[in-house]
Amino acid sequence: MSPSPLHEAVAHHKARHEEYPGGSYLRLTDKFQGAPRGTVVIDGRVVYGYPSIGRILRLETGLHHQFRAPFWVEEKVDGYNVRILRVDDQVLALSRGGFICPFTTDRAPDLLDLRILEAHPELILCAEVAGPGQPYVSGHPPYIREDVQLFVFDVMRMDQQQYLPQEEKRALVEGYGLPAVAHYGRYAPEQWHEMRELLWRLAGEGREGVVMKEDSPRDHRAKCVTSYSCVDDIRGTVDHLRDLPAEYFMGRVLRLALFIDEQGQGRMDDLRQQLGSAFMDGLFKAIEQSKQEHRVYRTHRCRFRDPENARRLLKHLKRADGHLHIVERGLEREGDYYVLAFDKLHASMTGLLGHVLGGGLVFD
Amino acid sequence: MSPSPLHEAVAHHKARHEEYPGGSYLRLTDKFQGAPRGTVVIDGRVVYGYPSIGRILRLETGLHHQFRAPFWVEEKVDGYNVRILRVDDQVLALSRGGFICPFTTDRAPDLLDLRILEAHPELILCAEVAGPGQPYVSGHPPYIREDVQLFVFDVMRMDQQQYLPQEEKRALVEGYGLPAVAHYGRYAPEQWHEMRELLWRLAGEGREGVVMKEDSPRDHRAKCVTSYSCVDDIRGTVDHLRDLPAEYFMGRVLRLALFIDEQGQGRMDDLRQQLGSAFMDGLFKAIEQSKQEHRVYRTHRCRFRDPENARRLLKHLKRADGHLHIVERGLEREGDYYVLAFDKLHASMTGLLGHVLGGGLVFD
Repeated sequence: MSPSPLHEAVAHHKARHEEYPGGSYLRLTDKFQGAPRGTVVIDGRVVYGYPSIGRILRLETGLHHQFRAPFWVEEKVDGYNVRILRVDDQVLALSRGGFICPFTTDRAPDLLDLRILEAHPELILCAEVAGPGQPYVSGHPPYIREDVQLFVFDVMRMDQQQYLPQEEKRALVEGYGLPAVAHYGRYAPEQWHEMRELLWRLAGEGREGVVMKEDSPRDHRAKCVTSYSCVDDIRGTVDHLRDLPAEYFMGRVLRLALFIDEQGQGRMDDLRQQLGSAFMDGLFKAIEQSKQEHRVYRTHRCRFRDPENARRLLKHLKRADGHLHIVERGLEREGDYYVLAFDKLHASMTGLLGHVLGGGLVFD
Repeated sequence: MSPSPLHEAVAHHKARHEEYPGGSYLRLTDKFQGAPRGTVVIDGRVVYGYPSIGRILRLETGLHHQFRAPFWVEEKVDGYNVRILRVDDQVLALSRGGFICPFTTDRAPDLLDLRILEAHPELILCAEVAGPGQPYVSGHPPYIREDVQLFVFDVMRMDQQQYLPQEEKRALVEGYGLPAVAHYGRYAPEQWHEMRELLWRLAGEGREGVVMKEDSPRDHRAKCVTSYSCVDDIRGTVDHLRDLPAEYFMGRVLRLALFIDEQGQGRMDDLRQQLGSAFMDGLFKAIEQSKQEHRVYRTHRCRFRDPENARRLLKHLKRADGHLHIVERGLEREGDYYVLAFDKLHASMTGLLGHVLGGGLVFD
C-alpha cells in the first residue's frame, strides 16, 4: 500500500492530520482498506498500525484450531504498545492509536540502544513499555519495581505490513543487545499440555501471558493470558469501576474460570479468595479516598529527560481523557530527570461514591 | 386519576390492550402522567403499578437524608412482585409489568385466604412470591425449601395510588391471617446503629434486606440490602453472565463493599472467599453444562392447579423471553397438582462457551 490511499481515508473521516515537533503526519483513526487503526503516514512513509491479536481461552482446542504449524511463544507484557522509528534525525515513539507518545519519545534513549535505527533507518521496533512509572495503564508487572522498561517483540519495515521473521528479529535483538520480551521456545499445536504447564508457571511468576506466532509465512497469531493477569487487572482498576465498561471486569472473571477449568480444579489454590480480595480491597481504597478527599483518583509519577515533553504529555492526556480528569501536581527536577506528577481523577466513581456516602438514593 | 388518561396513553404508545380469560384490559408499558409502568385499567378501574423503590447504600447518612420522621421496617423478600385483586368473580395476580401472571393467578388460593377480597373487593394486595418453585427470577430465600410462598407487604385500593396506612394494613393482615413480610418495628432516622445491627442479623439469616416506610402522610420509602443478597444474586446468575448486563454484577460487588465498609472490616469474615466462590463456582457449573450438553440452561419446575394455566405461563414466558429460549420438558400430574417442567436456555452464554471451548478466538 502506498501512502496515497491513506489520504483518501481523510475524505472518509477515517484519518486526521496531526502535528509533531518535526512537522505534521497523517493518522488513521479507524481501520481502512486493510490497514489497522493507528497506521500513520509520516515523511512520505507508511508505518502500519499494530493490530489487535485474538485471544484463545482453551489451549486444548484453541492451539489446534488456530495453528497449522509450530509457533513461537513469547511473553505478553502488561504495559502499553509502541512503535519506535526514526524520521530524519528524530527518534519517535508512536502509540497504538498513532499518536506521537511524548513520554516514550523522551525516554527512548534510556530504554534501548538506538544505534539500530541509525544503521537501519527503515526499521520500526514494536515494543511494550511497562512499569510503575508509565503514564497510561493501571497495572504493571511485579518484577519491574520502578520507572519503566521496554521490551521489543516485533520488527517491521517502513511501508510493509508484515513483521520480520522470528530468526531475523532475534538476530537484530541479539546483535544490538536490545531489551526484548522473554522467549519460551517453539511449540507444536499438539503440545497443549506443555503450554498449560508454561502458563501455570507464568501465572506463578506474575506474568500476564503469552503471544503465540505461527512459524510460517502467514505468521498467524493468538494470545492467551494467565490467572494472575485476570485477578491483577481487576485489583488494579476496580477502584474506578464506574469509569470502565462493566464488561471489562466480567470478561476477566470469565477468563479466570476458563483458565482454572483447564488447569484443573486442583490448581484453584486460594484463587477464590484472591478474586474476592481483588474486588473488595480495591473498592475499600476508593471508598476511603472518597471519605477522606471527596474524590477518587490515582497519582502517576513519570520521569522525563526534557521538561517540554512532560508538558506535551499532559496535553496529550487531556486531549484523550477530557480536560477535567487530569490534574497536574508538579514537575520537579530529581537528579538527571524531571519528574512529572499528575492525578487521574475518576469522575464517575467520584460522583457515585459522593452521592451514596452522602446518603443519596440509587435507582437500578 | 380516572381511567380516561390511560386511554390517552395508548395514543402515545405507552399503553397496550391485553387479553385475559375474562376479557381485555389496558396495560401501561411505560410511566405516564405520574402513573408507574405496570398500571392497568381493568373492568373500568385503575390498578396502579408498584413503583421501584430507591436504594440507600449508607445507613449513617442515608436514613437522615431520606426520612423526616420515624419509619417502619419490613423484610425485603427475594422473589417477584405481584398485585392480587378481584375482578367480577375472578381473582387475578398482576405482574410488575401489568401482565396477568398465570402462575400466581392459578396458585393464589393456595397462597393466601382470599376471603379478604370477597369482603373488600376494592382492595389490592401487593405481595412478593418467592421460593424454588417460581417461574421467574433465579434466586429464592434459603428458608423456603420447596414450592412458593407469598408475603403481603402493602394494600392499595382501586383507583388510588397511595397505600393503606401501616396500622390499617396490619389490622387486615392479622384479621384475615394473611401471610406477610416480617416486620422489624419502627425506627427513628438517628437509629442507624440499630439498623446496622438489624441488617447484620438479616445477612446471617440469609435475608435479602429491608424496605423502610416513613410513618407520615408522605409515606416515603427506601430499601437497603444485605451482604448475603449481593453474594447470593451473583452466585445465582453468573452461570448466564453474558445474558445479563455486566452492570448487574458490578453493582452488587459495589454494594457489597459499601455494606462491609459500614459494618466494619471486622465483619468481613470470609466474604472475600464467598464472593470469589460465587463467581467461580457458578461459572464452573456453566462450563460443565456446555461441555456435557452443549448448552447452558436452568430447569424450572412449577406446580399448577389447572393445566391450562401452565400452558398460559409458557406462552407468557415465550412472549417475554423470545421463542427460542423457553423449552418445555413436560407437564405431569403429581398428587393434586400438575407440575410443569421447562428449561430457560441462556443463549448468549451457550454461544460464547461453545465458541471458546471449541478453540475460537475472542477479540476484546
